[in-house]
Amino acid sequence: MKITVLSGGVGGARFLRGLRAAAPDAQITAIVNVGDDMWLSGLRIAPDLDSIMYTLAGENDEQRGWGRVGESERVSAELRAYGVGWPWFTLGDLDIGTHLARTSMLRDGLTLAEATDRITSRWQLGVHLIPASNDEVETHVVTESGEMHFQEWWTRHRAALPALSFVHHGLADASPAPGVLEAISDADVVLIAPSNPVVSIGPILAFESIHAAVSSAARVVGVSPIIAGAVVRGMADACLTAIGVATDADAVALHYGPTLLDGWLVDETDAALAPTIEAAGITARAVPLWMRDPASSAQVAGDALRLAQDL
Amino acid sequence: MKITVLSGGVGGARFLRGLRAAAPDAQITAIVNVGDDMWLSGLRIAPDLDSIMYTLAGENDEQRGWGRVGESERVSAELRAYGVGWPWFTLGDLDIGTHLARTSMLRDGLTLAEATDRITSRWQLGVHLIPASNDEVETHVVTESGEMHFQEWWTRHRAALPALSFVHHGLADASPAPGVLEAISDADVVLIAPSNPVVSIGPILAFESIHAAVSSAARVVGVSPIIAGAVVRGMADACLTAIGVATDADAVALHYGPTLLDGWLVDETDAALAPTIEAAGITARAVPLWMRDPASSAQVAGDALRLAQDL
Repeated sequence: MKITVLSGGVGGARFLRGLRAAAPDAQITAIVNVGDDMWLSGLRIAPDLDSIMYTLAGENDEQRGWGRVGESERVSAELRAYGVGWPWFTLGDLDIGTHLARTSMLRDGLTLAEATDRITSRWQLGVHLIPASNDEVETHVVTESGEMHFQEWWTRHRAALPALSFVHHGLADASPAPGVLEAISDADVVLIAPSNPVVSIGPILAFESIHAAVSSAARVVGVSPIIAGAVVRGMADACLTAIGVATDADAVALHYGPTLLDGWLVDETDAALAPTIEAAGITARAVPLWMRDPASSAQVAGDALRLAQDL
Repeated sequence: MKITVLSGGVGGARFLRGLRAAAPDAQITAIVNVGDDMWLSGLRIAPDLDSIMYTLAGENDEQRGWGRVGESERVSAELRAYGVGWPWFTLGDLDIGTHLARTSMLRDGLTLAEATDRITSRWQLGVHLIPASNDEVETHVVTESGEMHFQEWWTRHRAALPALSFVHHGLADASPAPGVLEAISDADVVLIAPSNPVVSIGPILAFESIHAAVSSAARVVGVSPIIAGAVVRGMADACLTAIGVATDADAVALHYGPTLLDGWLVDETDAALAPTIEAAGITARAVPLWMRDPASSAQVAGDALRLAQDL
């Protein structure tokens, strides 16, 4: 079975780890958001690709929830002493190793997708990661204090500055990476991970050709990142509010819409929202959605697959 | 007093540290070789600029003789695991901090000289470092096994592959960094550090305009990097042999020549070579030249200054 997943970073990583366990014989491809990517301190940083890679490799820091386990910050302390980078954005030494490897390969002329293949080949991930695009399409946030890179808004301002809108810089001249559209059209099932709908999944679907491919894909099932009117992790509510979508499992389903979605998983506590979603033409199912550990993540991913098969 | 020094890396660094102690009230400028610079693992590396900076900042590893004290190599281990970089060339984490700072500034559009100013401003060096050029002029070595970057020949092959010649890639399109020619022509004394004449001082003097400026400078005194027919450190003999110069204090003086040099310091054990050098029109003086520690380095630098003043 071929399964293709649209995914952001940490939440997507947990979902993919669960999916790998739930469908060990499937050929899994993840189309990964690159909107958070940026140049910082001379490095090309790709947070979502790396979060997924570290998690699938078992190298992620479970306690902290992000980055590499056993991390140190000697290089960042040097950068700070030289006045380079963002003082509120610390890169770990091991993580810098990944960024340097990527930056070096890009400098040598590899595309981001080629560099990702080379970098991920260090481990047996069991999931093929493809960046949504090889081009630099960075998400910026428009606020009353001006426009800034998503990471500045998210990490420095903790998403507390009201966002007026999100802009995908470079989108007009960008195209999906080779293999992205094929991975969607060839898939038996397309899954939308419980990632931030606005700044993780949004930048992927912002490519018209990707949106069209998902719309005409075989079976498309999404997993709600909202449980009981609250975000499971992160600050997706600030993003949803900015685009006029309520922080509710049904509102997010309707935001993606029936053109895109065939099925939608909500948490069991949101079972009452199912009729609204079904009325819009999307098959809804209520199951436990909390990904507390690998086992519960596998359960969620398995339920998403079962819904797809039952469609 | 204005003193300008042509300098390579480690040997030049010790000499400059000694000069700073010997002439605490002087305005010292170092024109630093960039021929060893290179791109590696996505980083712009400038070994000579960094060796000097670390030594003048008191951050160098005295035991090892190069690099930062208290160094670790976590990032390099990651790069190796990703198959990036040269397996025989390990970069320390603290050192990578410097390279990243430089690379970041270059990416932001600063010249190498501007980046060097910003980077060195972290410490009170007491010496103004100017790269010989803002352009990428890299020293390559031609051997029977092909051409390679100087660092590959020097570090990987330990200078054991016979060098047929040295090539300054990019020299034709390069120019000295702003301030280099002025620092030479405005100086009361120009000193040539006891650095490798071929691959440290050679790439600086390869700029015709720099060579001309030194030739017409007020007083130019060089310090022999050769003592008793042997190199003090490094493998300069392999370089000298390649260009047909004997590994002797007098041969190196004649290699620079009387057009360039007004005075030349040889070690006391090489006092017998003074007449040959003087016969060529270069004032020679024999003094202890071993830079064993900061005190002996200051003695050497002081002797070079005294020779210049006595000319």
